[in-house]
Amino acid sequence: MTNAGPGRPRLSKQRRPGPTAAAEILDAAAELFTTKGFASTSTRQIADAVGMRQASLYHHFATKDDILAALLERTVSEALALADTLADGTEPSAVRLYALLRFDADQLLSSRWNLGALYLLPELRTDRFAPFREERQKLRSRYRQMAELVLDELGADEDIRAGLPFRIVETVINERSDTESGDGPGSALASTAIADAGLRVLGWTTVAELAAPAEVLLAAYRRSVDDAR
Amino acid sequence: MTNAGPGRPRLSKQRRPGPTAAAEILDAAAELFTTKGFASTSTRQIADAVGMRQASLYHHFATKDDILAALLERTVSEALALADTLADGTEPSAVRLYALLRFDADQLLSSRWNLGALYLLPELRTDRFAPFREERQKLRSRYRQMAELVLDELGADEDIRAGLPFRIVETVINERSDTESGDGPGSALASTAIADAGLRVLGWTTVAELAAPAEVLLAAYRRSVDDAR
Repeated sequence: MTNAGPGRPRLSKQRRPGPTAAAEILDAAAELFTTKGFASTSTRQIADAVGMRQASLYHHFATKDDILAALLERTVSEALALADTLADGTEPSAVRLYALLRFDADQLLSSRWNLGALYLLPELRTDRFAPFREERQKLRSRYRQMAELVLDELGADEDIRAGLPFRIVETVINERSDTESGDGPGSALASTAIADAGLRVLGWTTVAELAAPAEVLLAAYRRSVDDAR
Repeated sequence: MTNAGPGRPRLSKQRRPGPTAAAEILDAAAELFTTKGFASTSTRQIADAVGMRQASLYHHFATKDDILAALLERTVSEALALADTLADGTEPSAVRLYALLRFDADQLLSSRWNLGALYLLPELRTDRFAPFREERQKLRSRYRQMAELVLDELGADEDIRAGLPFRIVETVINERSDTESGDGPGSALASTAIADAGLRVLGWTTVAELAAPAEVLLAAYRRSVDDAR
């Protein structure tokens, strides 16, 4: 096993997208977890799907839970970073919420595998995934805070509706799942439709006015992230 | 095995709610599937949770898939029966859609186990579950048809929004899952809030006017179902 490290020659040519062996493992695991199921997938099967030995896989991830945690973390971290930045923003709250909805929906729509489908796994309720659950609840709180500001502006009492925009984004997951099962009409779901819906459920009616300023906000944010790299 | 039929004396007193042994099996399976996971649950564990022999369980359900299919079917059948009735109704389309949203959300909120969390299981993509997927797609189409009528009334083109009310109801599943994990603030999610949201995403703003006539419609429907029994 001493020669089973990451520097070991590959068994075969690269089968999976990704700049590193860890990224290839994550891609293979994402496919297997979302198409076969988490409990039904072994680390051996993941290693086979990458074309590496199981011992090499363990060099990157000690357990199957670690792979799942890494995958889940990536579904939340970028949206949370944006939400943290937006929380201190001076733009109108409706524009900021619209921008967050678009960014988050775009990410869930464009990821290669429908990872959000793993959020409901009973395995996530264990202590192992408490850090992920906390991150996700932070994001949920950010959505709620922004939604409450929008409701304030509309003169509505802070109410039950404030929890809805976060849930609206998650509908992307179910829509993708149905489309990928080949059930029903193909979805033409766009992140703009999700962002519109996230504002409409709060009672905001002039959603068409939000798309352009939200786009400006997101472009500036993307530039600042690129600059920081 | 000849004496392993349903008439066999119980190993112990009834552990599960339900008028029949099949109902008890379904309750136990629903708990295990939603809290341990479908792939991680064996028919042996289900039989143990009911307090019956595995051979007796097989008398009621030949496979674990059959148990899952029975559970899933129940999450859709009542809402679909209502939707079929409402499709021929003469009440305003917004009232009919509101009534369907309330009824469906109430059902998902009040079921003993959060069975909707099983909709995203990769196992459901197999042929075995094609009948269930078809029923669910029928319900989805009913929602879409009613949403299109509402959009017509609002003078909006039939558009991408027509798919949203069906998705709004499913948000109940994620909200329950988070609440049951003990994550974040407890949800005070009510079926009226879901119904409001299902109309608001279409651009309908005067949702408060829909609750009362929808309630009348649902009361009449429930009476007709009771009478037919």
